[in-house]
Amino acid sequence: MGEKMGNLRRTHMCGDLRKININEEVVLMGWVQKKRNLGSLIFADLRDIKGIAQVVFDDTISEELFKKAEKIKSEYVIAVKGKVRERESINKNIPTGEIEILASELKILNESETPPIYIKDNDDVSENMRLKYRYLDLRKPSMQRNLKARHKTGKIIREFLDENNFVEVETPMLTKPTPEGARDYLVPSRVNEGKFYALPQSPQLMKQLLMVSGMDRYYQIVKCFRDEDLRANRQPEFTQVDIEMSFVDIEDIIEINEKLLYKIFKEMKGIELELPIARMTYNEAMERFGSDKPDLRFGFELKDITNIVANSDFKVFSGTIKNNGEVRGINIKGYESSFSRKDISKLENYVKTFGAKGLAWIKITDEGITSPIAKFLGENELENIISRMDGEKGDLLLFVADKPKVVFDSLGNLRVEIAKRLDIIEKDDLKLVWITEFPLFEYDEDEERYVAKHHPFTHPMEEDIELLETNPEKVRAKAYDIVINGDEMGGGSIRISDSKLQERMFKALGFSMEEAREKFGFLLEAFKYGTPPHGGIAYGFDRLVMLLTDTDNIRDVIAFPKTQSATCLLTGAPANIDSEQLKEVHMKLDLEK
Amino acid sequence: MGEKMGNLRRTHMCGDLRKININEEVVLMGWVQKKRNLGSLIFADLRDIKGIAQVVFDDTISEELFKKAEKIKSEYVIAVKGKVRERESINKNIPTGEIEILASELKILNESETPPIYIKDNDDVSENMRLKYRYLDLRKPSMQRNLKARHKTGKIIREFLDENNFVEVETPMLTKPTPEGARDYLVPSRVNEGKFYALPQSPQLMKQLLMVSGMDRYYQIVKCFRDEDLRANRQPEFTQVDIEMSFVDIEDIIEINEKLLYKIFKEMKGIELELPIARMTYNEAMERFGSDKPDLRFGFELKDITNIVANSDFKVFSGTIKNNGEVRGINIKGYESSFSRKDISKLENYVKTFGAKGLAWIKITDEGITSPIAKFLGENELENIISRMDGEKGDLLLFVADKPKVVFDSLGNLRVEIAKRLDIIEKDDLKLVWITEFPLFEYDEDEERYVAKHHPFTHPMEEDIELLETNPEKVRAKAYDIVINGDEMGGGSIRISDSKLQERMFKALGFSMEEAREKFGFLLEAFKYGTPPHGGIAYGFDRLVMLLTDTDNIRDVIAFPKTQSATCLLTGAPANIDSEQLKEVHMKLDLEK
Repeated sequence: MGEKMGNLRRTHMCGDLRKININEEVVLMGWVQKKRNLGSLIFADLRDIKGIAQVVFDDTISEELFKKAEKIKSEYVIAVKGKVRERESINKNIPTGEIEILASELKILNESETPPIYIKDNDDVSENMRLKYRYLDLRKPSMQRNLKARHKTGKIIREFLDENNFVEVETPMLTKPTPEGARDYLVPSRVNEGKFYALPQSPQLMKQLLMVSGMDRYYQIVKCFRDEDLRANRQPEFTQVDIEMSFVDIEDIIEINEKLLYKIFKEMKGIELELPIARMTYNEAMERFGSDKPDLRFGFELKDITNIVANSDFKVFSGTIKNNGEVRGINIKGYESSFSRKDISKLENYVKTFGAKGLAWIKITDEGITSPIAKFLGENELENIISRMDGEKGDLLLFVADKPKVVFDSLGNLRVEIAKRLDIIEKDDLKLVWITEFPLFEYDEDEERYVAKHHPFTHPMEEDIELLETNPEKVRAKAYDIVINGDEMGGGSIRISDSKLQERMFKALGFSMEEAREKFGFLLEAFKYGTPPHGGIAYGFDRLVMLLTDTDNIRDVIAFPKTQSATCLLTGAPANIDSEQLKEVHMKLDLEK
Repeated sequence: MGEKMGNLRRTHMCGDLRKININEEVVLMGWVQKKRNLGSLIFADLRDIKGIAQVVFDDTISEELFKKAEKIKSEYVIAVKGKVRERESINKNIPTGEIEILASELKILNESETPPIYIKDNDDVSENMRLKYRYLDLRKPSMQRNLKARHKTGKIIREFLDENNFVEVETPMLTKPTPEGARDYLVPSRVNEGKFYALPQSPQLMKQLLMVSGMDRYYQIVKCFRDEDLRANRQPEFTQVDIEMSFVDIEDIIEINEKLLYKIFKEMKGIELELPIARMTYNEAMERFGSDKPDLRFGFELKDITNIVANSDFKVFSGTIKNNGEVRGINIKGYESSFSRKDISKLENYVKTFGAKGLAWIKITDEGITSPIAKFLGENELENIISRMDGEKGDLLLFVADKPKVVFDSLGNLRVEIAKRLDIIEKDDLKLVWITEFPLFEYDEDEERYVAKHHPFTHPMEEDIELLETNPEKVRAKAYDIVINGDEMGGGSIRISDSKLQERMFKALGFSMEEAREKFGFLLEAFKYGTPPHGGIAYGFDRLVMLLTDTDNIRDVIAFPKTQSATCLLTGAPANIDSEQLKEVHMKLDLEK
């Protein structure tokens, strides 16, 4: 059992001490980062959340104190009283390196067994160990920096929104299960036998109701939940910066969000964004980058060669086109010599994960064209292709022929993958773009109906409303995503505020009015009583903090994250419970044998 | 379908306009509070979140515009462009009462059916109607004021804690089910068949682990969940201001929280609290007020007459005392004449709800003693009782004889109930008190063991640690509650930071070490690696906002609250789900027939 602090009270934080504190008597408390015993001198690096300070025990102190100092080990928790003095040998690597504390009093507040992981950054330990001993992992400077940056980002966002008359309103966590969208996490009700709450996938309906209620400008930094199979950098619970405004159209929302982004990047990174942020329509993003979250930090843009090869003797191309497919390519400009046949065959395997059947290629080398498909192409055809692709000596041209979705997915991902392999992205480059004019619907082949691309409350573009019933696939939405360096950081839309238009929307989605009322009746009812035009946006807060901390693992910006199988290695959640507890909520297990 | 805003953009908020805006051309958007049509003049009160402004349509405008103005009705959403001018007849009741807007353009953005509830405060409508049409209820000025006050309170708290080096860290919502405390809300896992998450009752363990991880000062404004039968002013999900600090003892935590409370009351109410806040031990609070959350705004303190009546001929008293009971009373000073026999019999029924078998009384009237029990008491005895009770002419003395718990509960609640009935509490009176030295344990008669009064991580007072094994009921805790006007606003404790002491604590609670490890193993493990002394506090945020908004219904400070049967009348949550959805999480219903 450790000693008590007694009448010692901390006067300073370790990391804050500077030359100006010399000769002050201070009390520090923290963890022993390391100890060196030189016989007549003991040095201890003491660590707290602000940093590290060197403490010295020498022969001017009592034998009892010196003996106590001999006992301390790494990660012991101690309190030290002493005088700040100038250091003989300055350590330029740490901000407190010009001073040290000559101890006059020491209390060992708690001991520590040898920790199972080292308390230092970039230690080569498995992530599972880091998660199991998260409380030790969080002692690392990088992790503390991440959590502090997360806090600061939230603070900056709140400050901005507070100043701009947004009101933070808490919406319920125990909500009604939603029929559309991702899978809900369910919470059985004890009082209401056989019924279930769902944890919110987003506060979408509630924030719209707040607009109906005249709250005018709402925000919330709030946990959301999706019970989906976890890909990398997805968590079952994630945090959203949720914003909604009344009496606005797209321009108003974009304008205020650009100011918000400006402030975030200014205060977190010292970067002054150039406003207005670039915009690109969904169609342009797909045509040029094969993705609605294009990474604009490098080229390799897609080009359509469909019309050139529609009647080609190369049947892989022309046959695909006859089956409503298309052929597009990217030009890996100047990197012809960086890719061997073997490399290209790896790229082919990569695009196959997106459903492509193959990857055709043309190299323009010093010796001329090298390509396995050249022999199937007419000379004119080959020339036209190279011209369309802006092909020059030193270029590698890559082509996929397939259904449009497969072509876009394959080439859109391939260009990013190649940029990563070539390591051509400048670390500090920052490219923001608004993607606009999303399609309102996408066709779900499993359900054989149109589903909402964003959600069923998204407002169609005014000029496309008349197409709702006749040409739904042509209807564009008043929706926008903010994409940064190829990641979707946030997205939103103007919402439907008219119950008749909302009914048409539900009909287009294939809901009978009965279904629509069953599912969203309260929203349709609310819309009858004076709904303002409104719209909003939601940012993925975890992703934003990842970007701001230059972190590529979502778990490094979350204090207690879950694994990809949605478990907590620290606490052991989820866990078994007593059958009695289950019975109270009127449930029993239904396990597969 | 409403008109579009077109190129109109809101320039001002209705409630912000003043004489200084006269002659400005403004665009306002909002809801029609009411319309008066005087034939050649139409007045419309336009409402937004900032307030109300009067709009005038007169014969200077086009006939078309005037006709459109004739169409608007209550709760229509409109946009108005016009010039601000001085009003002829000033309305002193509203801040914009000196001006009005002469409309030159009008757009009806949305129509409204006649709302099912009036948009005005103190309307005599059932709370169920208010909850069903919450989006209309939230249009009321009082509700908007409450939500804005809630936001502002959170903002003040965050500002204070940010300035004081606290870091807001988000802890998980999907946690491990807890074996102690209230009933968990459970979330079945889909991926981990047969296992469950629990929604957190508080982030207690997580915030302690953050202290182990060196985060030093943590806070979070966070949703917590308890699946308990709902009493008035309880919600299944509630919001907690959760705080934890390292390297502190009780005084440090109390000191910083007093500064926080000072700032909150100063900025929300303009009240400067006198610091330090009064303190009272648990024992004193029970003895004097029969409650550990005493309302100090009035007297009626408890007095113990047990030793006076221990051998009384009045067997109701002496018999109770022989059965380890006691007799205490309160003096309703000066209010003898306010209580008829019938009134007293109502008070007797009231105390019976707390288990009392009866309520003995003595009135000291102008004509002498009136009391049904006087005849059983010796003259000397009666005199001694009256003297102990400070009885004077005009006083009503009330007594309960029972087990201590029943006596305290009955009289503690009775004094509050009487103060309310007499309406003697001054509206603006504010009495804060820290309650300290709580017992560490209380005996659970059902479970036949001691349970933790706060939670199993509460540190015993140093001088009582030796009693842990021998006299657990005598052990006092390093725990403290902040009580304001008889409501517990927050509470906390210094935590055990020593794994050996924690083990002794678990043993005292009757856990085998095996059970303790199964339940809290990760915490015991964490404590091995250098745990700082730490402690914290949690405030009930909903209750705090109730106090600050002078609201006595918790649902009036929550945007979308649940009923006492934990349902949402607006959305219909909780709801039925498809059996398919249930099967995915490996569950089936187990309904009682």
